[in-house]
Amino acid sequence: MTYTRLVQQIKSKRSFLCVGLDTDRNLLPAHLRHHPDALFLFNQEIIDATAPYTVAYKPNTAFYEAQGSAGWQQLSQTIQYIRLHHPNIFIIADAKRGDIGNTAQRYAHAFFQELNVDAVTLAPYMGTDSIQPFLNHPNKWAIVLALTSNESASDFELQPLANQQPLYKEVIQKCIQTGTKEQLMFVAGATRPQKLAEIRAIAPEHFLLVPGVGAQGGTVAEVAKYGMNRNCGLLVNVSRDIIYAGKDNDFAMTAGQKAAEIAQEMARWL
Amino acid sequence: MTYTRLVQQIKSKRSFLCVGLDTDRNLLPAHLRHHPDALFLFNQEIIDATAPYTVAYKPNTAFYEAQGSAGWQQLSQTIQYIRLHHPNIFIIADAKRGDIGNTAQRYAHAFFQELNVDAVTLAPYMGTDSIQPFLNHPNKWAIVLALTSNESASDFELQPLANQQPLYKEVIQKCIQTGTKEQLMFVAGATRPQKLAEIRAIAPEHFLLVPGVGAQGGTVAEVAKYGMNRNCGLLVNVSRDIIYAGKDNDFAMTAGQKAAEIAQEMARWL
Repeated sequence: MTYTRLVQQIKSKRSFLCVGLDTDRNLLPAHLRHHPDALFLFNQEIIDATAPYTVAYKPNTAFYEAQGSAGWQQLSQTIQYIRLHHPNIFIIADAKRGDIGNTAQRYAHAFFQELNVDAVTLAPYMGTDSIQPFLNHPNKWAIVLALTSNESASDFELQPLANQQPLYKEVIQKCIQTGTKEQLMFVAGATRPQKLAEIRAIAPEHFLLVPGVGAQGGTVAEVAKYGMNRNCGLLVNVSRDIIYAGKDNDFAMTAGQKAAEIAQEMARWL
Repeated sequence: MTYTRLVQQIKSKRSFLCVGLDTDRNLLPAHLRHHPDALFLFNQEIIDATAPYTVAYKPNTAFYEAQGSAGWQQLSQTIQYIRLHHPNIFIIADAKRGDIGNTAQRYAHAFFQELNVDAVTLAPYMGTDSIQPFLNHPNKWAIVLALTSNESASDFELQPLANQQPLYKEVIQKCIQTGTKEQLMFVAGATRPQKLAEIRAIAPEHFLLVPGVGAQGGTVAEVAKYGMNRNCGLLVNVSRDIIYAGKDNDFAMTAGQKAAEIAQEMARWL
């Protein structure tokens, strides 16, 4: 998907919601849990119920890999289902991959061709040559971890370098030298909202994928206040607060209601 | 596998060779390339030919994911094959995963239970809470990226922090506070061999998984000189120089010869 089309979707849906498909077999409603295609069947219902309020879906690959090749198959089915029934929605594989050269090219192939997602999340530890191979695919995106929402982001991401700049800013500055706003986004957590303003100072145009709203304590209001740019420039991810909002047969309806609620809050900021 | 058993294997085989199963469909001998189980069939022959000289195998997940769920299936078959026919060989999933909390637990399940490998490589960017969930599995290992062998390791890994210490050393120091030599290793590249001595100064007991010997320019001699400890403490990985040493029907025999040659060099240092 192009930058322009993504921005259009946000404007027309009046939402910058990304729904995280962290589909954990153990947390599914009892009637689905033991079905061999449980992950896909759950996703399908969640997607249909939330699509009107959603501009992006973000399956986290861990939950699918935990089921082996059958899980990988259901991840693929989920993506095909979105492509077919909701073709205007952006799809992110939250894979946090990071490897170099030929290996990175194989990951790019796995995600952009084989799975056919729009974007993949990447860990920048190994340096820019682990990002570069993901930037050569037209209308596909690399989303680089910058400042994540977890507590131990303070271990390394927030550590100041010898030049006084924290590591996550160094990551952003090195990456934007090669990736335009049409091919590169950054992950920036909602749990330290004022840092979003600092990120905007060095990456005013790039989209930010923002986890940490809801259970982790971040709010849409703060993210919008500190992180929004003139094209919105935000995809705010909510996973568990939406997909596990209901526990029973009506889980999808409850998820849809929760997504509608969050989108309504987002519309106020657009 | 336990630390003690791994050290025993190294002593009895007089080798600390890890063979990287970076099985790229496009590089396979012509007679295999178009077979639906090409990756597994290739691996099977490579494994049987190299097992006498090898203490560890390291499939890189990128090459399997590039084939979708069929690739994931062949990765699983490869691991089962090693377990059944060469039960004393350590198996590393080179996956460079890194995520937090519940997600990290799902990855640990995917690799330690579902795929049943001994160890998984992890990227530490998100901090120690992305490593911790991999340390609670008896006789399973986390192998954390410290200083990788690629050129852009200089982008972040080698950057000095405000305390003057480069990031990769900070990673090692933070990680060894929670992971013993029985559950934690570090990736340290052969391309900057003198750094191995610096790593030994802060992590004298932990195993190092060392890529970068061969095509990338590192040598067994330098790795042994700077990185070996009293229990060897090294797994030196060679991928392409072994698995693609031969191009034709006799590819496995040629791979076996190459592995034997490298193991012979290793024996001199043990």
